[in-house]
Amino acid sequence: MRKETTAFTILAAEPKTRARCGRLETGRGVIQTPVFMPVGTSGTVKTMTPDELKGLGSEIILCNAYHLYLRPGHKLVSEMGGLHRFISWDGPILTDSGGYQVFSLAGMCKVTDEGATFQSHLDGSHHFFSPESIIEIQEALGADIIMTLDECIPYPSSPAATREALERSVQWAERCRRAHKRPDQLLFGIIQGGFYPDLRREAAIRTIELGFEGYALGGLSVGESRPMMLEVVERVIPMLPEDRPRYLMGVGMPEDLVESVIRGVDMFDCVIPTRHARTGWLFTSFGRVIIKNAQYAKDDTPIDPACDCYTCRHFSRAYLRHLFMAQEILALRLNTIHNLHYYFRLMQGLRQAILEGRLIEYRDEFYHRRVES
Amino acid sequence: MRKETTAFTILAAEPKTRARCGRLETGRGVIQTPVFMPVGTSGTVKTMTPDELKGLGSEIILCNAYHLYLRPGHKLVSEMGGLHRFISWDGPILTDSGGYQVFSLAGMCKVTDEGATFQSHLDGSHHFFSPESIIEIQEALGADIIMTLDECIPYPSSPAATREALERSVQWAERCRRAHKRPDQLLFGIIQGGFYPDLRREAAIRTIELGFEGYALGGLSVGESRPMMLEVVERVIPMLPEDRPRYLMGVGMPEDLVESVIRGVDMFDCVIPTRHARTGWLFTSFGRVIIKNAQYAKDDTPIDPACDCYTCRHFSRAYLRHLFMAQEILALRLNTIHNLHYYFRLMQGLRQAILEGRLIEYRDEFYHRRVES
Repeated sequence: MRKETTAFTILAAEPKTRARCGRLETGRGVIQTPVFMPVGTSGTVKTMTPDELKGLGSEIILCNAYHLYLRPGHKLVSEMGGLHRFISWDGPILTDSGGYQVFSLAGMCKVTDEGATFQSHLDGSHHFFSPESIIEIQEALGADIIMTLDECIPYPSSPAATREALERSVQWAERCRRAHKRPDQLLFGIIQGGFYPDLRREAAIRTIELGFEGYALGGLSVGESRPMMLEVVERVIPMLPEDRPRYLMGVGMPEDLVESVIRGVDMFDCVIPTRHARTGWLFTSFGRVIIKNAQYAKDDTPIDPACDCYTCRHFSRAYLRHLFMAQEILALRLNTIHNLHYYFRLMQGLRQAILEGRLIEYRDEFYHRRVES
Repeated sequence: MRKETTAFTILAAEPKTRARCGRLETGRGVIQTPVFMPVGTSGTVKTMTPDELKGLGSEIILCNAYHLYLRPGHKLVSEMGGLHRFISWDGPILTDSGGYQVFSLAGMCKVTDEGATFQSHLDGSHHFFSPESIIEIQEALGADIIMTLDECIPYPSSPAATREALERSVQWAERCRRAHKRPDQLLFGIIQGGFYPDLRREAAIRTIELGFEGYALGGLSVGESRPMMLEVVERVIPMLPEDRPRYLMGVGMPEDLVESVIRGVDMFDCVIPTRHARTGWLFTSFGRVIIKNAQYAKDDTPIDPACDCYTCRHFSRAYLRHLFMAQEILALRLNTIHNLHYYFRLMQGLRQAILEGRLIEYRDEFYHRRVES
């Protein structure tokens, strides 16, 4: 039985948009929404210590059940006292079910109604995920929010293939729901359905019928255009129960976050701020800074003069470029600090704008400040 | 003219050994000796922020004139306000003259009395270092302690080759001495002479005659045995003026530091703690921990239960092994923090033992605590 009460409370709804500010309670602390969750694939947000993440304002991190199952193994993590203790992060954690990774990263993947057989991207060994086993894995890891197993399909896919994956994702969601026992974890359902409005609609209705603590939109940011992605968000969000958090998986760029918050999304995760940092792509209010560019070689100013992150308070573009060109690890760290700080400040700005009822103005300023688009 | 007063003050001399505790004053702060200087080759102690280094107890760092000359260029660093400002480290810096790098790292190296022509290890481009140019480079970088240009020879080398290099190193030291103008920098002379007692003796006498703020032993830790290295230290140290700091370049392992401090060395630099950290070799009071070893896969204890570094306070061997196997950058950071902490604590212990007149006992305990040797 689902609890009658919900862990999610809406603090404010923006009158002119679908956006809302909320708080999501977990056993390990409260998350203010809309929230961005940095990705800690293998039990570490790359280059960062837990303390640094806290300092930057991270209230929750995401880890991947797929990666942790393969290495070091969910049973080992469980023996070591669970994921929080293992990685020394005492705040909330969300684990992704591994559906996306099985279909995108694994060497070979064969799907039946029973589950997915796949090859490890690490050593080619064969593995099998079922809805029941992925719940067992996520219960062993012990995250505060866990996800159902879904079937992810390539973009584009035919209506027939999309329907087949939808059927399976709904059935798997139901089996996950039944298998899930830990009362201290919130289980979120994932809505698939590709880019066919009827199928998304059906997936939403059937997933909501099953009853979850939150609902995620899956299968987006897979190669489609931004308008296509936002069209799905616009179509599905109004179908979701008001009192449950809405999570747009794997998205995205700062403009994606702004536009999706306006359309009612509460939660995001994406590797972009951290991965882009490691390629020298830095986010600022006036657009991107590609730090390796020669124009920064003698630039004594910080990445963003208006930014108060550790990197911008201490280091010049010239030094950051030098570190990057010399392939120094410190470059990856300082860039990651800056980009995560940018993302957390953006989310903070969005939450504040919602509370003040000026989200559209905030979006307009967001675009206006950009030199390049 | 050399200043009559010296920047170096001896606080205590150990009665039973040659060891002493001192303080070396620079324009950017006081260094307590014996001191270990972490190596920040290209203007960053790999993986670490300046704040972290300070927090660990680093009072001075070493940077390489050779690397910074090649990339980003000493003129660029000077334009950016000097090395301290460029890398955001406001404590003392020592720059190595580049002699060692020219002879060990560079693609091709041709030496004449005038100087050394070499190929960049980065792009094969041709360059020329003279005693005058290396002083110009180090003045542009602006370190607090700078080194003379010396000729480094392979091990083993014949007496004739060793003598030739000695002659050049002495002549170059004199030219460096004449070329050096910045009164805010301490210039140290480097004593060469290989493993021939007469030549080391001659090099020491002639270098001391030139008069420097400190004296370095060069050309050690080049492949010789520990007893051979310590024999040179034992022979040369008593020849050096008491009131000048003695710096053993590029050494070494913890036992090298202990034995050399006993023999009167005041300053050390070495890549071992940081480089070994990145290969998963961790130093502890009971010997080394090779973190990738399978025995640590389910080891819930810290690297060293007696260690109070950030890594040991927060993370288990099992997690550190996982991070290392997954090639996560955080592994390199946490390992570096631990190893540097170990080195700084070791130096602190040595200083304390000198002040208390119990250095031999400290050494005996140091060996006794080790499980393996």
